[in-house]
Amino acid sequence: MNGYSDNPLYKVMHPESVAFWGASSNPLGMGSVQLSQLVAMKFPGAVFPMHPRETEIMGYKAYRHVKDLPVVPDLAVFVLPTKVVPEVLEECGQGGIKYVVIVSAGFAEMGSEGKQMQDRLVEIARKYGIVFLGPNCIGVINSHWKLNTTFFPYDAQPGFIGIASQSGSFVTQMFVHLETFGMGFSQGFSIGNEAMVDIADCLEYLGGCPDTKVIALYIESIRRGREFFRVARKVSKKKPIVAFYVGGSESGKKAAMSHTGAMAGPDSLYDGILKQAGIIRAHSIQEMFDFCFVMGSQPLPNGNRIAILTHSGGPGAAAADAAERNGLQLATLSPKTVDALRELVPHTASIGNPVDLTFNKDPNDYTKTMPSILLQDDNVDSLFMYLLIPVGRVMQALAATGANHEQATILADQFLDSQCHAVVGLSGKFGKPVAGGSFCTRNEPFIRKLQDAGFPVLTSPERAVRALAGLSRYAKARQAILAEDRKHGVDQTAE
Amino acid sequence: MNGYSDNPLYKVMHPESVAFWGASSNPLGMGSVQLSQLVAMKFPGAVFPMHPRETEIMGYKAYRHVKDLPVVPDLAVFVLPTKVVPEVLEECGQGGIKYVVIVSAGFAEMGSEGKQMQDRLVEIARKYGIVFLGPNCIGVINSHWKLNTTFFPYDAQPGFIGIASQSGSFVTQMFVHLETFGMGFSQGFSIGNEAMVDIADCLEYLGGCPDTKVIALYIESIRRGREFFRVARKVSKKKPIVAFYVGGSESGKKAAMSHTGAMAGPDSLYDGILKQAGIIRAHSIQEMFDFCFVMGSQPLPNGNRIAILTHSGGPGAAAADAAERNGLQLATLSPKTVDALRELVPHTASIGNPVDLTFNKDPNDYTKTMPSILLQDDNVDSLFMYLLIPVGRVMQALAATGANHEQATILADQFLDSQCHAVVGLSGKFGKPVAGGSFCTRNEPFIRKLQDAGFPVLTSPERAVRALAGLSRYAKARQAILAEDRKHGVDQTAE
Repeated sequence: MNGYSDNPLYKVMHPESVAFWGASSNPLGMGSVQLSQLVAMKFPGAVFPMHPRETEIMGYKAYRHVKDLPVVPDLAVFVLPTKVVPEVLEECGQGGIKYVVIVSAGFAEMGSEGKQMQDRLVEIARKYGIVFLGPNCIGVINSHWKLNTTFFPYDAQPGFIGIASQSGSFVTQMFVHLETFGMGFSQGFSIGNEAMVDIADCLEYLGGCPDTKVIALYIESIRRGREFFRVARKVSKKKPIVAFYVGGSESGKKAAMSHTGAMAGPDSLYDGILKQAGIIRAHSIQEMFDFCFVMGSQPLPNGNRIAILTHSGGPGAAAADAAERNGLQLATLSPKTVDALRELVPHTASIGNPVDLTFNKDPNDYTKTMPSILLQDDNVDSLFMYLLIPVGRVMQALAATGANHEQATILADQFLDSQCHAVVGLSGKFGKPVAGGSFCTRNEPFIRKLQDAGFPVLTSPERAVRALAGLSRYAKARQAILAEDRKHGVDQTAE
Repeated sequence: MNGYSDNPLYKVMHPESVAFWGASSNPLGMGSVQLSQLVAMKFPGAVFPMHPRETEIMGYKAYRHVKDLPVVPDLAVFVLPTKVVPEVLEECGQGGIKYVVIVSAGFAEMGSEGKQMQDRLVEIARKYGIVFLGPNCIGVINSHWKLNTTFFPYDAQPGFIGIASQSGSFVTQMFVHLETFGMGFSQGFSIGNEAMVDIADCLEYLGGCPDTKVIALYIESIRRGREFFRVARKVSKKKPIVAFYVGGSESGKKAAMSHTGAMAGPDSLYDGILKQAGIIRAHSIQEMFDFCFVMGSQPLPNGNRIAILTHSGGPGAAAADAAERNGLQLATLSPKTVDALRELVPHTASIGNPVDLTFNKDPNDYTKTMPSILLQDDNVDSLFMYLLIPVGRVMQALAATGANHEQATILADQFLDSQCHAVVGLSGKFGKPVAGGSFCTRNEPFIRKLQDAGFPVLTSPERAVRALAGLSRYAKARQAILAEDRKHGVDQTAE
């Protein structure tokens, strides 16, 4: 928490008032769309649309100049044509505005002329003590502060994933992706060309953010390698960082170059830097958020020995295969565990690992008794559960007892609540990470209940197991960093 | 088509009548649940529940013995306790039933005693000329014949993916997964312990099936390697085969062993066999079906040079990175293409490859004009399109023209139809494969329309690009097999 609210980015994410350049009475203009999202989010602070001619925009009084404003706004957002950006920044400086998000593009990513213009922005900012994000970014989101300066509606719940991204799309277009898991961002930065504020700054800030339990980074290149490494190594001792780096292939590098004008480095170099900094690398955007879900919600494992609980052979085998391919080891169950399980399973079931129930007798066995037995085993460091409890089956069972549809719906709901409660409580009770995998989506009430209660359910066994493997790698990397610090006599409490 | 309806599996998949053992008046019994799915599918043929005591089950007249039946059923399905299976099989043989699906478990997967019982089944079947699937399988699905003997409701549309799987879950539990893409199976086999019919038999059959455009295989082990190779090599000349093999890791191997009692082989060996047989390997269930969507719907590319069309830098860079990591090459666009594109994009856009529009002026540029320009280029073998056309934006645009909500809805729908029509027509018009990627799901009408029209839209840029890479590998493998055949003077027309 130390220094969190002193961080220059704190005010960018927690403004009491926002001056907004680029919205107009044309609702299709990009600026108007962006301002409308701030309005849709029900931002509780003051909003000042700035416009040379219009006097009212979206129901807010519009202002021509900074000097006309009733207060000095905490934050300015620019969605302006490239060429007017320097003069408006100058005006902000003169008016005392200290924090700016520059959405406008057409700077360093366009070549040397653009680069000169961008340097000019930095010069103006330094003169007035301004800190600005961008240019060529999409903006910021703080779901806990109801702040959304991007042009996408934030539909998800406030969440625990903090993101800093060199692509605006990988902030904004993830709103809908995260929502399919019942997840959301805590805070998100689209950092664009990083003329002043770069990914290391955002990482440091998110490291201190109490709403952020895990940090996601989309990286096309790292500008200040040494600083990034220093910050990452410090933050990763406190919370997991997951990164997706695309600049490592020739094609990714070229694409990144034309995107934000950044020079990317070789894959192996980044691999090494990220690993030593305790950052877990993901290999796609999807994997990055899968990892975030598990790594941000589950306790750290003591080792890499996983137990797999399934009632279907194929998903169990796929999970086992994925476990080994991702550095996990199938736990050897203790004789006591095997004996306890044997009581609960039909004769066709397998009580090796994967534990394959094949067919539910008492549904509580699968969600309560068996996971507890497995997690009590000292040989087990983490648990994967294959999940398939279609509410249709439950309804069918209840109908068979003579319940009418309404009664059955209520009873099914109570039943699922109790099952959900049991599963969600496992990791806290045993201090070990648990994740679920299912081919069902949130359309299935059981899956939705679990996800909404914060239990990570991913869309296949392989994806969930890979995420548990990521968490295991993180636990190991963190231990290594702490051990190295101890060796060098670094005082842990000082940071 | 040659031999398709003569294949012994044809009748298993196209029965006019089904005798069903194991359903009862208890709706929660596994047999009852399975029969209820056959009923729910509105199977148009005759259904004969078989029961020692009950006289009516689910509205159908129940029979005690095969000899009591009014006709000899084409197919028998057993959901019976293990120990009575041999005698009922014997009864079927005596009654002239030739095709049986044995769902019952407790055979070879349970060890040597079970193996003996399973051998006994084969003996009985041989005596009477019976062909049976299983034991320890879940059943079959023929979506075009309205046949579903599994215990899962088939909710998806009839589709073009044929599957043979050593896991029942990877047939049944995929119904809901495929439905999230608007896809479905043509026909699906859960093959269980493969006592008589094995994966090679199913592959050969699906190779001839006119409703099946691509074949998916879930493999824990291959029992008859030589025969499998022969069949696969023949079938892969006609249609793509995608396989997910889990037995290659030690953990996957052990899990497979307890699942269907199969001995799996080393990863590298299978890698080689699959490759030489023209089979494309997927590394997860999700990837297998991603590949099926693209490989079953798109024409073969002439090479591995891909064009990437995006209006967001990050997804473009991620697609470029995934392309190279999966053996594709970013196409070098011809000067003519670059000139033509330059007319259409704003000055901040990139017209390298990825082609990054950054911001739509005319939405037709993105869905019609630009893809056509790219596909006309001789340097381009395939096209990936990043898709994001939120209907909300369209509605907003229409509202801005003064349309009321109802008018806007109708106009938006017409607009999306026209955009969809353009995208879907691209591959046919230019004879090159095209795939889309989006973080939006079928909840977004544009995505749903595209998928329902058969255009593959996957859930991220990386997934779509990997599937296009799979298609490219298939095209190359098929060419190699055809070339080798020519070298050895194999008559192509004879097969």
